[in-house]
Amino acid sequence: MSTVTRIDQYLIAQLQAHGVGHVFGVPGDFVLQFMDTLTKSSLRLVNTCDEQGAGFAADAYARVRGLGAVCVTYGVGGLKLCNTAAEAFAERSPVIVISGAPGVAERARHPLIHHKVRDFDTQKKVFEQLTVASAVLDDADTALGEIDRVFAAALRYKRPVYLELPRDMLAVRTRHHHVSSAAPQVSDAATLSAALAEAVALFNAAEQPVLLVGEEVHRFSLQQAVLDLVEHANVPVAATILGKSVIDEDHPAYMGIYQGGMGREEVRAYVESSDCVVMLGMMMTDVNLGVFTARLDRTRCINAVSEKLSIGHHVYEDVLFADFVHGLASAELRPRELAGHPASQPAPAYEIGDPRCRITVERLFQRLDRFLSEDTCVIADPGDALFGAANLTVHQSTAFLSPAYYASLGFAVPAALGVQLAAPHLRPLVLVGDGAFQMTGLELSTVARYGLNPIVMVLNNGGYVTERYILDGTFNDILPWRYHRLPQVLGAGRGFVVETEGELDAALAAVEGYVEGFSLIEVMLDKMDASPGLKRLAAGLAAAR
Amino acid sequence: MSTVTRIDQYLIAQLQAHGVGHVFGVPGDFVLQFMDTLTKSSLRLVNTCDEQGAGFAADAYARVRGLGAVCVTYGVGGLKLCNTAAEAFAERSPVIVISGAPGVAERARHPLIHHKVRDFDTQKKVFEQLTVASAVLDDADTALGEIDRVFAAALRYKRPVYLELPRDMLAVRTRHHHVSSAAPQVSDAATLSAALAEAVALFNAAEQPVLLVGEEVHRFSLQQAVLDLVEHANVPVAATILGKSVIDEDHPAYMGIYQGGMGREEVRAYVESSDCVVMLGMMMTDVNLGVFTARLDRTRCINAVSEKLSIGHHVYEDVLFADFVHGLASAELRPRELAGHPASQPAPAYEIGDPRCRITVERLFQRLDRFLSEDTCVIADPGDALFGAANLTVHQSTAFLSPAYYASLGFAVPAALGVQLAAPHLRPLVLVGDGAFQMTGLELSTVARYGLNPIVMVLNNGGYVTERYILDGTFNDILPWRYHRLPQVLGAGRGFVVETEGELDAALAAVEGYVEGFSLIEVMLDKMDASPGLKRLAAGLAAAR
Repeated sequence: MSTVTRIDQYLIAQLQAHGVGHVFGVPGDFVLQFMDTLTKSSLRLVNTCDEQGAGFAADAYARVRGLGAVCVTYGVGGLKLCNTAAEAFAERSPVIVISGAPGVAERARHPLIHHKVRDFDTQKKVFEQLTVASAVLDDADTALGEIDRVFAAALRYKRPVYLELPRDMLAVRTRHHHVSSAAPQVSDAATLSAALAEAVALFNAAEQPVLLVGEEVHRFSLQQAVLDLVEHANVPVAATILGKSVIDEDHPAYMGIYQGGMGREEVRAYVESSDCVVMLGMMMTDVNLGVFTARLDRTRCINAVSEKLSIGHHVYEDVLFADFVHGLASAELRPRELAGHPASQPAPAYEIGDPRCRITVERLFQRLDRFLSEDTCVIADPGDALFGAANLTVHQSTAFLSPAYYASLGFAVPAALGVQLAAPHLRPLVLVGDGAFQMTGLELSTVARYGLNPIVMVLNNGGYVTERYILDGTFNDILPWRYHRLPQVLGAGRGFVVETEGELDAALAAVEGYVEGFSLIEVMLDKMDASPGLKRLAAGLAAAR
Repeated sequence: MSTVTRIDQYLIAQLQAHGVGHVFGVPGDFVLQFMDTLTKSSLRLVNTCDEQGAGFAADAYARVRGLGAVCVTYGVGGLKLCNTAAEAFAERSPVIVISGAPGVAERARHPLIHHKVRDFDTQKKVFEQLTVASAVLDDADTALGEIDRVFAAALRYKRPVYLELPRDMLAVRTRHHHVSSAAPQVSDAATLSAALAEAVALFNAAEQPVLLVGEEVHRFSLQQAVLDLVEHANVPVAATILGKSVIDEDHPAYMGIYQGGMGREEVRAYVESSDCVVMLGMMMTDVNLGVFTARLDRTRCINAVSEKLSIGHHVYEDVLFADFVHGLASAELRPRELAGHPASQPAPAYEIGDPRCRITVERLFQRLDRFLSEDTCVIADPGDALFGAANLTVHQSTAFLSPAYYASLGFAVPAALGVQLAAPHLRPLVLVGDGAFQMTGLELSTVARYGLNPIVMVLNNGGYVTERYILDGTFNDILPWRYHRLPQVLGAGRGFVVETEGELDAALAAVEGYVEGFSLIEVMLDKMDASPGLKRLAAGLAAAR
């Protein structure tokens, strides 16, 4: 074969081949030509207001779809993505960051081209810190292989990667035929067998085994394998807050969220008294471990994550996470009786009270629990939107998204864009604090532009309530916007403001029937009103400083 | 003396000692304690909606005041400042980036604390690429010396620096008395003399010497020295677009902006036919040089910038920029007759026409030229806001701000915050395109919160017009907001929408009398309407790709 390929077309083909249908971005002169080619392909370019919005949207898209992409210009575009790339790195979301750049020839001719910071490779060096692989496609002989290598790293590690496109390289054709290649990763078979044998022995000997599942089950698409494992062995299962909804929360084996001393006491007691805790894909973070109040004795733990497998004090190398989970799910495990474990505790059923009652955080989340349907995807911004949402019962596997570890405020609204384009059958319910909304909430403009219809609840308590519980000062206050009037600025969507339980009911009824655009419900809350989860966590964080 | 000092208090004292009165930032748990201490000092903490806004505001503040500071939390705060730090680096603006961080002790105890990306020093490594000095204050014995070193670098190079504050180090007292020290930089006296002698000889022998001044004259506060030089030798002077307004534009020796083939032909012809071009503090960028159409023969140039001095083919080392400029201003230069040089060409006087005429870009800038007063500071966002504004006559030295080289959209609105807090006697006139406004325009919230009253003109042409002239596509369009309705969302300010010349007149008259808050004037423009400067530059940029 003698087919030769343009670099830009090969990149677009690789995005398509890996399930990417939408690329988020903001144009700029160094990326205009690539965007032009992109819009003429079957990929859809989604233009956000600011690069930050594109970065968050691509991260959310990657979490739902398995791969995401964001495309911006050099310097003034790329460097606005540092924080969202860092989030994707920290929480394992495979995002391809594509940056246009000055051409190879013009770099040699002129040292001071606009948008340049220090050296032409400054942006590349920055992204080396924030990604698992990076490349500048400045050589036609290696460019296609470099694209393969960078894509493979994103998919293997579920983390962001960086590709820089000098604008004079886009239309360059490679001299040789290139076959897309990514060496498949395999486990060492003997080590895998040994690890599974020890795990099965421990599990079968245990009196009270328990499963603890985290976000990597989601990232590596192992939800079904975990469900098989749960049903096959009849073992009770808890999720971490980062892993919330990797298992259907209505399942009888599901106990709820485990979060050390910050979570429900029955779940903590059951997990920590287990003689075999099988931890699958959970990060040992302060938030997951209830500010390190978790007591998980290593000698009783099987701990499998994508980068490590340990059973008691034994570490097994060269075992892929997915192979271990699949192996365990199909191993000969002693089935148990599902009894004695704490049942999942949904929020108390919401009883309609006096409609004139002022709404509180507690009642808001009880009401929302009733509002969730099979088609709802809950997207919670960090802060009390997340802590309150932790107790919602989500009715689908993987219908809950939140950056619960990296905790970057402002994720949720642009994430709704990513979620609904990645999974059009889902209607996002966005829960976001007013402080976070002031960062990125205007991406509702993009939501409107692309005809999406998320429901956005702005929890308006006049500032950063989590921080008020840690250390208060005027710096925790913000200007009180009239959030519900934003539809008048955007010329799209519907706004509601609710202060009472009756008004909340009415607004929720109205938004259920309004599917033509986004709905924004501004919920007026007292300044110090907060969920019990927030109060516990903030006390823990305050003590930890 | 046995005084010992807390690290946080020493840092605050150094900010105060160097003229900083305001610190811009967004709170987060790792920086709450420092913010608390800050608000109890005489420094004023200014809370923006998003970190990006704080970064742009601090950059503008630094350009006006000589030093700026921005203070944020770890990871989710710091990494949102990469782009604004890069802008400050590229355009020489001394900004102290202060980031809170996990404590030294907790870093050792726990590997996965929220907001962490890869390693605890990842953020530091990123900022090493974007600053001229950086330090993590994790050692009481060296912390105060490190603060001195980092401040000195910011002030010497007029570029950003990075300080990271582990939260358990703030209240640590140093064991020894520390005297603030910064070794003064001095020129090598003999080299300075030799350089001045050659420069004076060239200047005096020249038939038609000319001065070309850039942004470093502003950064190094050399406006008066340059004015002395101009008046002492009666030499005509042009500014680069980045250096616009470093010299009073009403001055009889002032010719206007020099921008190679992209600027006014008379200025280009005069400068390029000069037999002695004295270039002071100008960067040789594509925008300054009219996409490299400038023809400045090195053998006829004296080129002094902060990092280099060359006269013809001679390079002089160890000569400080300021010493050279002061030396030249007080040297024995042959005075000339001020005649024959092209006069500064203000926009044609604005004649009131038919008030029902639709407003155009050309007429808008003519009208604004008449509107500028002694107290106006023009802040132009990149794009046609800048290209159109290049011909405005600014009536004060250093009353024009624009990131004309790094060209990051969204600078202008948050910059207004920085300018008006740094120089309360100035009222900013913000010129911003609609695309850029959608990035950061909601920082009008912060403008309102702190009671400032800039006049913001949103040039509404439905998208990115500069890019339309380079390569057009749907990616250059944006959602049409009703910008003038934002005061209803913010509960502050006044909004106007103007389509005709009469409406523009009425709005400008109204905002002159309304000083209690910000004014937002939305100017409806045709999609392809653009200034002549934009059309010339875009054609140049399109050809350069």
